[in-house]
Amino acid sequence: MSLKIEGVFPPVPTPFDANGEIAPDKLKANIALWNKTGLNGYVVLGSNGEAVMLTEDEKIALWQAARDAIPRDKLFLVGAGMESTRASIALAKRAAQVGADAAMFVTPSYYKAEMKPATLVNHYRVIADASPLPTIIYNMPAATGIDVDANTVTQLAQHPNIIGIKDSGGNVAKYADLVRAVRPDFAVLAGSGGYLYPALCVGARGAVAALANVAPRECVAMYDAFRAGRHDEARALQLRFTQLNAAVTSRWNVPGLKAALEELNQGYYGGAPRLPLRPLGDEDRAALRKVMQDAQVI
Amino acid sequence: MSLKIEGVFPPVPTPFDANGEIAPDKLKANIALWNKTGLNGYVVLGSNGEAVMLTEDEKIALWQAARDAIPRDKLFLVGAGMESTRASIALAKRAAQVGADAAMFVTPSYYKAEMKPATLVNHYRVIADASPLPTIIYNMPAATGIDVDANTVTQLAQHPNIIGIKDSGGNVAKYADLVRAVRPDFAVLAGSGGYLYPALCVGARGAVAALANVAPRECVAMYDAFRAGRHDEARALQLRFTQLNAAVTSRWNVPGLKAALEELNQGYYGGAPRLPLRPLGDEDRAALRKVMQDAQVI
Amino acid sequence: MSLKIEGVFPPVPTPFDANGEIAPDKLKANIALWNKTGLNGYVVLGSNGEAVMLTEDEKIALWQAARDAIPRDKLFLVGAGMESTRASIALAKRAAQVGADAAMFVTPSYYKAEMKPATLVNHYRVIADASPLPTIIYNMPAATGIDVDANTVTQLAQHPNIIGIKDSGGNVAKYADLVRAVRPDFAVLAGSGGYLYPALCVGARGAVAALANVAPRECVAMYDAFRAGRHDEARALQLRFTQLNAAVTSRWNVPGLKAALEELNQGYYGGAPRLPLRPLGDEDRAALRKVMQDAQVI
Amino acid sequence: MSLKIEGVFPPVPTPFDANGEIAPDKLKANIALWNKTGLNGYVVLGSNGEAVMLTEDEKIALWQAARDAIPRDKLFLVGAGMESTRASIALAKRAAQVGADAAMFVTPSYYKAEMKPATLVNHYRVIADASPLPTIIYNMPAATGIDVDANTVTQLAQHPNIIGIKDSGGNVAKYADLVRAVRPDFAVLAGSGGYLYPALCVGARGAVAALANVAPRECVAMYDAFRAGRHDEARALQLRFTQLNAAVTSRWNVPGLKAALEELNQGYYGGAPRLPLRPLGDEDRAALRKVMQDAQVI
Repeated sequence: MSLKIEGVFPPVPTPFDANGEIAPDKLKANIALWNKTGLNGYVVLGSNGEAVMLTEDEKIALWQAARDAIPRDKLFLVGAGMESTRASIALAKRAAQVGADAAMFVTPSYYKAEMKPATLVNHYRVIADASPLPTIIYNMPAATGIDVDANTVTQLAQHPNIIGIKDSGGNVAKYADLVRAVRPDFAVLAGSGGYLYPALCVGARGAVAALANVAPRECVAMYDAFRAGRHDEARALQLRFTQLNAAVTSRWNVPGLKAALEELNQGYYGGAPRLPLRPLGDEDRAALRKVMQDAQVI
Repeated sequence: MSLKIEGVFPPVPTPFDANGEIAPDKLKANIALWNKTGLNGYVVLGSNGEAVMLTEDEKIALWQAARDAIPRDKLFLVGAGMESTRASIALAKRAAQVGADAAMFVTPSYYKAEMKPATLVNHYRVIADASPLPTIIYNMPAATGIDVDANTVTQLAQHPNIIGIKDSGGNVAKYADLVRAVRPDFAVLAGSGGYLYPALCVGARGAVAALANVAPRECVAMYDAFRAGRHDEARALQLRFTQLNAAVTSRWNVPGLKAALEELNQGYYGGAPRLPLRPLGDEDRAALRKVMQDAQVI
Repeated sequence: MSLKIEGVFPPVPTPFDANGEIAPDKLKANIALWNKTGLNGYVVLGSNGEAVMLTEDEKIALWQAARDAIPRDKLFLVGAGMESTRASIALAKRAAQVGADAAMFVTPSYYKAEMKPATLVNHYRVIADASPLPTIIYNMPAATGIDVDANTVTQLAQHPNIIGIKDSGGNVAKYADLVRAVRPDFAVLAGSGGYLYPALCVGARGAVAALANVAPRECVAMYDAFRAGRHDEARALQLRFTQLNAAVTSRWNVPGLKAALEELNQGYYGGAPRLPLRPLGDEDRAALRKVMQDAQVI
Repeated sequence: MSLKIEGVFPPVPTPFDANGEIAPDKLKANIALWNKTGLNGYVVLGSNGEAVMLTEDEKIALWQAARDAIPRDKLFLVGAGMESTRASIALAKRAAQVGADAAMFVTPSYYKAEMKPATLVNHYRVIADASPLPTIIYNMPAATGIDVDANTVTQLAQHPNIIGIKDSGGNVAKYADLVRAVRPDFAVLAGSGGYLYPALCVGARGAVAALANVAPRECVAMYDAFRAGRHDEARALQLRFTQLNAAVTSRWNVPGLKAALEELNQGYYGGAPRLPLRPLGDEDRAALRKVMQDAQVI
């Protein structure tokens, strides 16, 4: 368990070309730009990477591109969670072959009523036993309708190959409770840039945040300010980005994130999401620009 | 739009062998048994078929086995819904090649907040335009967290290649409203045996019901009694099966369904579900037997 | 337990005058009109009666007016549920003094997480032990966020002074399960006109339905058609009223119900609801008229 | 708008005697003890005060007792929210007569579907126009099923007589967004001790926290540590109290709070809650003691 996960990680979007096919080169180019911003690594094929829209072959191709583009001093995290335990393990093995550093597994959710704590504990333990990569729990209630409770996480944190949780529930009180309960090297990661600073305040070790795609330097600055004890600066950054964070998450989701990358005009590729997701219309696009101006990123 | 969907259809479970691999021969054998019971057809790879646990190759193999086993005078329906529109279409094309009669598409649900009516309307229209098979909407709120509203369905029912809905929401008032609003040949199908009879009373044309796997003759009898105007008989059957229906749906889900098939002792293969789903423990198994005895199926 | 509750009961709205004060005379006048329609009785101060908006004195005054207006051959039911058990009992005693026939008690809901089955069972038993009036459970998930499960109701149905449930959850499968499980003289009452007919089909004994305020004769006709075995007629009426039912419940709620009474132009008093509820605006009012025309009540 | 709300406020429980009657003298005695702990004031008849269980006369009697016991240099806040706007205003006027400093109004919630932003904005504006006391919005989703959004609050914060919000939603990202959007003297108050410190970090001005009843000095110490920039100390206190906070809120609610006061053995009166709430059983009581020992309050 020597892998230490700390800092700010963007869950990068997956570029599609005009025909709707994956564009691994665009992903490489995007990462090359992000590499200059101080980010601590990347999550490739999380929720913002439209993982559920992709075939297995597409996933491998995107991971290979990412591996090429990500320097070895930055972490390369992948999303490898599937509805079945065995498919999750199989995918983690593919990710290990590609050279990823760790794998996040979103909770299965189709059979919601069956996803009781004991079932989830078993699921993650079987994965952690079999996965060649360190295992990160990925709690994403807005997508799954399931909110893994603190007791379940605390039990799982005793497994030597389960090294952290990305929790997108936004329940900072729970993060505090987790930090208190788990072993010191288990990483609690905020799942959004909307509460990055307060999560750090209660002991979170960083964040996987869509916001870090469009405001990477500022997210890193927030993290650095916190680490250096400059709380007023961290708070000011947090307040400055509440609306832009919402724009690329709850308000417009992946379509908003992709549009915001384009609006930055810094060379990032955005492009359209795959259907059923649809690109932002003109009116939303204008509203997004206003939010970006208010946040002073354009 | 000549395909008429009427009657009782079990969403058949997927048999796995002792190693967790799919067992298409067991599926054939099960279907051979069900063929003798008066069912009007089958849904292969719905929620009860653990579709989300399967690779594409496994799906095709199971559909091919089903095609072999299903007589041409019974309908062969498949579950082909994926999170992306294009993957749903691709899968429907594979199902058409195998020889299925129609395809059900569960609502995408990972990007829940984005699954607004207009997005779902577009999703299903694009599918229906491209799918070589007649399209059936599949509403399954317990799994997806999304409940397609009556207006959305009514709009979609105007598309010539969208021929029905399987609605597992259990909202019988909504079924009545749909029956009122859609064209006469659009099939509203109840999604559970727990409300088969009252759904028929308001104009539903049948049901896709897990219960029909373990009580096929009785479900058919309920349907026939309704059609013949023998309401007291239909009601008595409905009341007799409330608990067994719950046992193979909300109470124990797919593991309960598979265990119940075994407990029937009529030659049906049950077997274990794929992880994270787990087989029923001894205590639950005993409780299940009690429910089956009360329902007089064992 | 000789009180038998069968048939159709409107939960009558509470008339307020132009100053927002209760208008018991208007209530009397409304009831006098409804008395000519074949309804089996009334619920005074249910959800549609804005009970939560009223002081205790106002409640008594309204019940006294209702008692004057309701003939002895029709049932006079009251809503007497409060957040505390003792206040519920106290109110039921007042209702008994006024001469009500039975009292409905909506589930307490403020301390939602504490409203576990055992707590609700105790609550209703203590009420039923102390109440001079027969006790009816009132399940209203849309208002309370609590859905009393079938097991809880089945336990409570063993109490000699708990004589029925008004269930507004709309889960017809649950009604079937309740009818199966409870003693024969325990009344399961549908809580809405949107599923009156299918609820009767599975054994419900009637309904407390907002729709019965604006279409009393038609609701009674639906009930009578079912009782006489004229299922096609009952179904046709059910389908005809799906939209009007929604208009006076989920779509526009109490403001819609009051506006609809006025639009009938038959002498019923509607008036404004109490704030925070607000009267329908012009656009909604026009849409309501359209719905009423479609349902052929105006 | 000179009233400034800052610091830590316990929502005090309502003492009932052995007969279930209110015990205003016990409330006075409790407040006399709390007065020595550095708390900045009190909320009398919030959710923890079982306000929904009390008659209006009982409320006045309890407020009068509280007024006697609360020194003039501490704030005396009351809960005065009712389902109807007019009853809320009437109650606020009574509270003003008693001498309260400000009134909190929980969102009406019975007609949930109608509690749209515009309806809530109107409700609070009408109250704020008429209330002789400064108005505080009280957002309590766990009780009401309604979560007032940031836009609604931001609009309301423009009213000169609406001076703050107690938000028990626990969404710290939203608190940050509110702090950014509202005028500087509008107080955002955390609604629980489980996230007091991170809420302060993003600009909240204090908390109304059940935890402050049983750990008043420690809550004040957390607040003071934050204000003095001693973040490590504040964090350590926050982590120390995650479990005790849960014990007196989500885990055991008001019964847990009352039991905890008794277990402190410092002279505080706890007593039983009113039915349907029930006192903690022996097993829960033992578990509560363990939690209190772990938090080092006993």
